[in-house]
Amino acid sequence: MGLPKILNVAEHRQLRQPRRPLRALRETPVSALFDGGNNNGMVAMYRATQVAITKAREHGFSVVGVNNSWVSGRSAHYVEMVARADLIGIHSVSSRIHVAAPGSSGPATGTNPIAFAFPTLHEPFVIDLGAAAFMGTDLIFQERRSAVLPEGVAIDVQGRPTRDPAQVHAILPFGGYKGFALALAMQALGVLAGSGLGDDKTYGYLIMAIKPDLLLPLDDFRHDMSEMLARVKATPRQPGVEEIRMPSERAFRERARSLREGIEIDRKIYDALLALPKGKLPELG
Amino acid sequence: MGLPKILNVAEHRQLRQPRRPLRALRETPVSALFDGGNNNGMVAMYRATQVAITKAREHGFSVVGVNNSWVSGRSAHYVEMVARADLIGIHSVSSRIHVAAPGSSGPATGTNPIAFAFPTLHEPFVIDLGAAAFMGTDLIFQERRSAVLPEGVAIDVQGRPTRDPAQVHAILPFGGYKGFALALAMQALGVLAGSGLGDDKTYGYLIMAIKPDLLLPLDDFRHDMSEMLARVKATPRQPGVEEIRMPSERAFRERARSLREGIEIDRKIYDALLALPKGKLPELG
Repeated sequence: MGLPKILNVAEHRQLRQPRRPLRALRETPVSALFDGGNNNGMVAMYRATQVAITKAREHGFSVVGVNNSWVSGRSAHYVEMVARADLIGIHSVSSRIHVAAPGSSGPATGTNPIAFAFPTLHEPFVIDLGAAAFMGTDLIFQERRSAVLPEGVAIDVQGRPTRDPAQVHAILPFGGYKGFALALAMQALGVLAGSGLGDDKTYGYLIMAIKPDLLLPLDDFRHDMSEMLARVKATPRQPGVEEIRMPSERAFRERARSLREGIEIDRKIYDALLALPKGKLPELG
Repeated sequence: MGLPKILNVAEHRQLRQPRRPLRALRETPVSALFDGGNNNGMVAMYRATQVAITKAREHGFSVVGVNNSWVSGRSAHYVEMVARADLIGIHSVSSRIHVAAPGSSGPATGTNPIAFAFPTLHEPFVIDLGAAAFMGTDLIFQERRSAVLPEGVAIDVQGRPTRDPAQVHAILPFGGYKGFALALAMQALGVLAGSGLGDDKTYGYLIMAIKPDLLLPLDDFRHDMSEMLARVKATPRQPGVEEIRMPSERAFRERARSLREGIEIDRKIYDALLALPKGKLPELG
C-alpha cells in the first residue's frame, strides 16, 4: 500500500534542494537534536530512532529531535523499532500546515500524528493516530477519482464545509476541539525538535524511548500489558460484531499474510520504482 | 467549579479503606514508582509531581508512576506545576473503566486523559484532554436534572445508543476509533505506572518531565513556543468568529478574574466543606 508513496518522495520539490548529512546540533548522553540536512524524513527518522534506541538502552531514557527534514511516512514504523528493542516508544510529528482550528477558515496545524509502541508477550502493541479527520493522501486520491468527501471533514477557502476535493482549503481535526488540542500538543513537541529553526517553522520530529524497568521489571511489564490488552479484547460485543478490533492487530495480520503470500504491485508502479536513481543512506555527519 | 468535587472525595468508598503513606516500590535517579497507599489521587499525584520535578531538574528527564490511588482531579494542575519549573510535562491517567470500545456493549477503557504543559514567554501552554465523548461528572449532573444526553455519546447495556442518563452503561470515546486508540495508549502507560499491581488493574498515573535544554536552550524554546502559538492564534477566522480559542487560554483568564474578584460558593457546599474533618498530607514513606 505504501509503496507508491516512494514515488511521491522521488517527485517531492524538497528533493531538488541540496542535501547534507544529518548533523547533531546538540547532544547529551540521553538526547540529540539533528539538523536533518534536508534529507527525506524516512531516512532522518530511521537514523534518529537508531540513536534513540542506543541511548535509552544505556541510560534508561532518550529524546531525539529532527528538523530540516520532510515526509517521514508511517510513524508506526519508528515506534515499532523502539518496542522491538524492549523499550517504550513515543513519537510525535509536527508537519506541514493542513488542518484548521475550530472557527478558522485556514489551516493552523499539521496532520501531526502521535504514535506509541509497547513491548508485550507477543507482537508490540502499536498505536498511530493522526489529528486530521481525513488523510491528506486520501484527499489526492478522491480528487483524482472526482469523488465527494465524507460530511464534516474539510472546509473551503471561506471556512465553509465542503465535500468537493477540489475546493478543500483545510482539513478539519478529528473529534472537534480535542483533536485540534492534540494536534497543537504535537506542534509544541515539534518546537522542542527544533521546528522553529527552519524557514517554514513546521517540520519537527520527536522520538522518545523509555526502558520499562525504570519502573517495572521488563517481564512484568510485558505480562501486565498482554493481560490488559486481553481484558479489553474480551469486552462484551454488540450483536453482529465479531471481534473488538485492537490497534495494530490488523496491520500485523496483513503483514504476516504478505510475507507468506507476497504482495501485488501495479506494473506501472513497479517499473517506476525500478527506474529510480540508485543512492545510499546519508551518513550521520 | 471544582470545589464541590472535594465532597465527592470525602464521600468516596475508597476513603473508608485503610491508608498508608506513599511508598517507593522502585527508584532510580530519573524515575520512581509509588504505591499510593490508597491515598486520594490529588495527594498522591501532587507528591509524584514534586518528585518528577526534582529529578528532571537534576538529570534532564524523569518518569514517575503512581498506583493504588484514585481520583486525581484536574490533570492540567500537575503538568502546569511541571511547566512552571521550566520543564515540559506529560501526564497520562489510566482510570476506572467507563468508556466503550467501538463495537463493544460494555466499558473497555477509562476516560484516560492525557495532559501536556510547555513553558512559553508568558503563561504555560497547557493541554488536557479526556478520551471520552462526554465527562463522567457531567453524566451525574445530567441524571440529577433528568436531562437528555447529546446524540452519540453513550450506549445502554445492550450496546445501543442512548440519550437517557439513567440507561447509560458505557460512554463512547471522542472521535470514534481514534479516541479509543488514544485511551488505550494511556491505559498502556498506566501499566507502566503499575496499574497491574492493584486488584482492580485500572488506576495508573504517569508523569514525565523533560528539560527543554536537552535539545534547545530554554530561552529559545520559550521564544519558539510563543511564536508558534501566535501563528496559530492569527489563523484567518470564519465570519462571526471573534478569536481562535487556544487550549488553557480561557482557564487562565478565568483564574485571573477569580483571583481579582473572588468566587461565589454555594452556601450548602461551603458549610459542607467547613464541616470536613481536618487532616494532614501523608508523608512519603
